[in-house]
Amino acid sequence: MAVRALDDLIALLAKLPGLGPRSARRAALHLIKQRETLLRRLAVALTDAANQVQKCSRCSNLDAADPCWICAAPERDDRQICVVEDVDDLWALERSGMFRGRYHVLGGTLSAIDGYGPQDLGIDRLLARVGAGAVGEVILATSATVDGQTTAHYIADRLSATGVSVTRLAHGLPVGGELNYLDDGTLGAAFEARRPVHTTAVDSA
Amino acid sequence: MAVRALDDLIALLAKLPGLGPRSARRAALHLIKQRETLLRRLAVALTDAANQVQKCSRCSNLDAADPCWICAAPERDDRQICVVEDVDDLWALERSGMFRGRYHVLGGTLSAIDGYGPQDLGIDRLLARVGAGAVGEVILATSATVDGQTTAHYIADRLSATGVSVTRLAHGLPVGGELNYLDDGTLGAAFEARRPVHTTAVDSA
Repeated sequence: MAVRALDDLIALLAKLPGLGPRSARRAALHLIKQRETLLRRLAVALTDAANQVQKCSRCSNLDAADPCWICAAPERDDRQICVVEDVDDLWALERSGMFRGRYHVLGGTLSAIDGYGPQDLGIDRLLARVGAGAVGEVILATSATVDGQTTAHYIADRLSATGVSVTRLAHGLPVGGELNYLDDGTLGAAFEARRPVHTTAVDSA
Repeated sequence: MAVRALDDLIALLAKLPGLGPRSARRAALHLIKQRETLLRRLAVALTDAANQVQKCSRCSNLDAADPCWICAAPERDDRQICVVEDVDDLWALERSGMFRGRYHVLGGTLSAIDGYGPQDLGIDRLLARVGAGAVGEVILATSATVDGQTTAHYIADRLSATGVSVTRLAHGLPVGGELNYLDDGTLGAAFEARRPVHTTAVDSA
């Protein structure tokens, strides 16, 4: 290909999860063929997203407003905070309609390999919210992966001194699976069957 | 999701071939996380492509220039025109390095279902190029699908009166496969073993 504008587009599309070089070429051609109905609209949508979407300073959810629509909703329950790895996990829980409290979005898991530490997950911000008093339960809804469960245990340990009730989703999650890929029924069942976490700190007390 | 800018972006991404609603959500989050390095660059690349990329008025290849870089290249062989269904087939042939002639990009195949007729494939433009005299061989490199082969036969019939040699790729193509998905070796072998088309018009002469 000697078309600079197309080469650039294909190279960038190939960086999206789910698209490789070949499917990026198909996508680029598809876009060119639907120049007005898709290509230009996608360019505008990307620019809008880049300009408008921001992290909620309270829970790290993504929204055009700060605080986000969940933190700002008066009808939601301040007594529960659900901790999720990423925004798509929050979306999955919202689709299931199981949970009417607030969230804390970690933005990842503790990972020595990726150099992702507690400060990156906003744990201090979570502790401050719990320390403010209204919160009665923190629900750890991280994935049933090694990293997800390690992160959940770390957070449970950090929360143990606050006296708040810390629960985690029931192990109805398929082991090794990601929260975001669960069907609503399984997700709902796991949510209902959540149970207290017995942390090292509590056990040794 | 209550974020308009994200909802719009996800809905448009889900229209790309290879992405569904779930992978579009993942892609959107991935973009937001790489706002400057990927999201904004992709928005610019899409706008550039929308503004710059056009069909070559001669062969229907895509390029920022008209005529395209292949039609404009003086070193390429005017005596051969290779007819392909779409631009990604042209790209596949260029990657294989087998062919140094010119192209005619159909932009699709004859299809009664899709209402895609000869006028949409630029057959008259192809006939005019052949009629201009320099062309000695037209190579029909359509896919080995029913639509692709039907289209090839239709074009061969239309070309039979011109006296130009009409060939098609050897049937080393896996039946039912698309040209764009072939490896370079198979594509090259099929290209080398191309053979004359005996059209109805020639047989009845």
